[in-house]
Amino acid sequence: MSRKLLANQQAIRFYSSTYNSIYESIKIKLQNHLKNHEFQFKAHHHTYSDTSIRNQHKISGDGLWSPTLHFEKNQLSPSSSSLYSSLSSTSELDQTNCNNDKPRRVTVIGGGSWGSAISKVIAGNVTKYPDLFDPEIVLYLRDENLRLVIEKTRVNIRYLQIKLPTNIKPVSDLKEAISRSDVLIFAIPHEYIKDVCFKIPKRSILTPRPVGVSLIKGLHIDGNGNLERTTQIISRMLDIPVGALSGANVALSVAKEEFSEATLSPPLPSSPKVDEMLNKLFATSYFKISTCYDTPTVEICGALKNVISCGAGIIDGIGYGVNTKAAAIRAGIRESIRFVSIFHPEYKLSTFFENCGIADAIGSSFGGRNRKVIEQFVKSTKSLAVLEREILGGQKLQGPSTGEVVNRLLDNRNLCDQFPFFTTIHRICNREEEPRAILKALELSC
Amino acid sequence: MSRKLLANQQAIRFYSSTYNSIYESIKIKLQNHLKNHEFQFKAHHHTYSDTSIRNQHKISGDGLWSPTLHFEKNQLSPSSSSLYSSLSSTSELDQTNCNNDKPRRVTVIGGGSWGSAISKVIAGNVTKYPDLFDPEIVLYLRDENLRLVIEKTRVNIRYLQIKLPTNIKPVSDLKEAISRSDVLIFAIPHEYIKDVCFKIPKRSILTPRPVGVSLIKGLHIDGNGNLERTTQIISRMLDIPVGALSGANVALSVAKEEFSEATLSPPLPSSPKVDEMLNKLFATSYFKISTCYDTPTVEICGALKNVISCGAGIIDGIGYGVNTKAAAIRAGIRESIRFVSIFHPEYKLSTFFENCGIADAIGSSFGGRNRKVIEQFVKSTKSLAVLEREILGGQKLQGPSTGEVVNRLLDNRNLCDQFPFFTTIHRICNREEEPRAILKALELSC
Repeated sequence: MSRKLLANQQAIRFYSSTYNSIYESIKIKLQNHLKNHEFQFKAHHHTYSDTSIRNQHKISGDGLWSPTLHFEKNQLSPSSSSLYSSLSSTSELDQTNCNNDKPRRVTVIGGGSWGSAISKVIAGNVTKYPDLFDPEIVLYLRDENLRLVIEKTRVNIRYLQIKLPTNIKPVSDLKEAISRSDVLIFAIPHEYIKDVCFKIPKRSILTPRPVGVSLIKGLHIDGNGNLERTTQIISRMLDIPVGALSGANVALSVAKEEFSEATLSPPLPSSPKVDEMLNKLFATSYFKISTCYDTPTVEICGALKNVISCGAGIIDGIGYGVNTKAAAIRAGIRESIRFVSIFHPEYKLSTFFENCGIADAIGSSFGGRNRKVIEQFVKSTKSLAVLEREILGGQKLQGPSTGEVVNRLLDNRNLCDQFPFFTTIHRICNREEEPRAILKALELSC
Repeated sequence: MSRKLLANQQAIRFYSSTYNSIYESIKIKLQNHLKNHEFQFKAHHHTYSDTSIRNQHKISGDGLWSPTLHFEKNQLSPSSSSLYSSLSSTSELDQTNCNNDKPRRVTVIGGGSWGSAISKVIAGNVTKYPDLFDPEIVLYLRDENLRLVIEKTRVNIRYLQIKLPTNIKPVSDLKEAISRSDVLIFAIPHEYIKDVCFKIPKRSILTPRPVGVSLIKGLHIDGNGNLERTTQIISRMLDIPVGALSGANVALSVAKEEFSEATLSPPLPSSPKVDEMLNKLFATSYFKISTCYDTPTVEICGALKNVISCGAGIIDGIGYGVNTKAAAIRAGIRESIRFVSIFHPEYKLSTFFENCGIADAIGSSFGGRNRKVIEQFVKSTKSLAVLEREILGGQKLQGPSTGEVVNRLLDNRNLCDQFPFFTTIHRICNREEEPRAILKALELSC
């Protein structure tokens, strides 16, 4: 399947022989929108702090609602950051890893519920494409005891009560887990990503280097107090190109093969072969993948939805119903758009209509673990740490810590008053405000 | 409160002294977007079938995310439709109804759950603004027995178990209900709107004529097989200007004063005094009103969310969880955007981020009556009519009938295959397909 086809899958297509005039002018509208987008990109080039797409590019619309970014591999700016200098050499990847006949070996780093569920999906797919993939995948878990249990029972008894396929090899030695891998899937809590990357010996990384895909939802603050995304950290520390996969994906439901979607933002610079390979790695009849070339927005949406779902948990905690919860999710999406427009001005509004946007915010606000724990937090006097232990049984709560990072990033720029919803959630989670303060925040949020 | 202020309430405002360069170029991006919008409007002027904004206008952005349409009252096109010829004369309204000192009398037509809940909201507000409003409001119900009960107990025992304020006067004579009213609020099932308008004697309508606000969620098909919106029907039949109010508003929660929002699309041509008056009529600390000058999108969203919530009911019926439901809501919003782009090409994408858009789709998909009934429909072999009686106790189910209208409108234009989600919901509600066909529709929908 070509990248063009993948792009089509996620786009709203307009076609009709009978309504040409209407479609023609929708097309004009879209093309003008895309031109603005390009203009916007150029206008910001010098102030833009996100290095991940600091690159020459052109945007092509082809009448698609969701435009794709085509990177011109031969037009890399001489001023590209060191990250990009290294990424540019991933054209090697396109020419070697993806063109050679050797099937790719895949490693999932992280044996929590989502790491285990996605391993099951991937394990099914690698056997479907023996030319593309090694038939065995590696699942890295740091806990040797849990590894032994999985090896013996094929069930991750701690996090996911689902039988795992036999072609998943659990490994608890990090070097061994990645030493022969061409595709690294990261599925650990965001707090641990720097530790894990630090522990990965550079010499254990294959040459030509693997591609990475981050399933991690979280934001970080760099040494200058600015936003650093997880894919940027992995790219910087391991010197590999990293994409993101994000969506409304409650792990157990995916493992039970209930229909889900996810948004895939492939590693940049874009390579049709890598994009196609990753699509084949993740997509199944019950797990639909849409490709979206807007990694920062996809990744930031994935993190902010955990803050939104804390807001939903607060609404549930004070006993209000769906009217209020729907207003809260809308406030969260509105503040997410504003947040992205500040930290990634080249964002595409259409990305918020992808699964990683509205759908993930909805899913997490009704079904996620943050919602569940924060509801109890509002109803009790227990601390978050206690409730995390009691309710999640070892799983990590990511909403409050992401809320903390968001608050610090906004505070560093004196922007807190423009984000009453996010700011109030953070203060409620710190018990600095009463839970009902969320109602005032909703009234103020506009 | 000026209209400018009202517009600001619903817009995402960007302001910062420290990040001028970023804001400046967001502003440029928005302005270009608005220019496109204007271009788009002009390009379609001759093919546009929706007469409600067939008018000279200019669009001003002022750095707002959600642009407002400013209608130039002196520039009415000579080719304006009869509807518009009549609407143009509502400048009288601006000069008389809104400038005179006589407090306005308000009538709510429809004593179901939403009619009763909004009457309670309005009854509170009219006492707050004695200069603007008559202190008593009229609630029209066709059932004389129910009227007597409400008069005696102040409770609409059939639809809403909440005490109603004493300044609500229940009336079961339609002519009497509207004969002295300056503001007509319509809150009846959409199937009955033509009947009700037909029964309203023209001579009972005040001169200068009242303004109408439709709270009705539904779509209609005119004699040529084209879409006709409820506000257009009321305007056409009663010869009054009609706006729309729509949002995630489960009636009981609003009546219990849980925080809710709604999107108000005031009658056109826009008049700051009327807009301000309507805002004061509806807004309370627990019911937040955002103004949006895009009536067709607001109204179509309100109708289509009932189809989306049937989709959510089907997902619940087959026993799938939030991943699938989030994917379904996203498919519904995507098809709603496509539907609006066909039947109202001048739509604003930002309207979908208003409460009438994503929030209402979310609220209805988790809390609405369509979701509840369709879930049982999927789990049983009972007919919709039986379930409606058993579960809703007299309330009407609007999703399947709206789905039927949507399907006919699309079929008339040979567009069904572009709307797999909406089309499949319609077929499942007719028992022409198995409920699990919704999964295939989600896979196809893109």
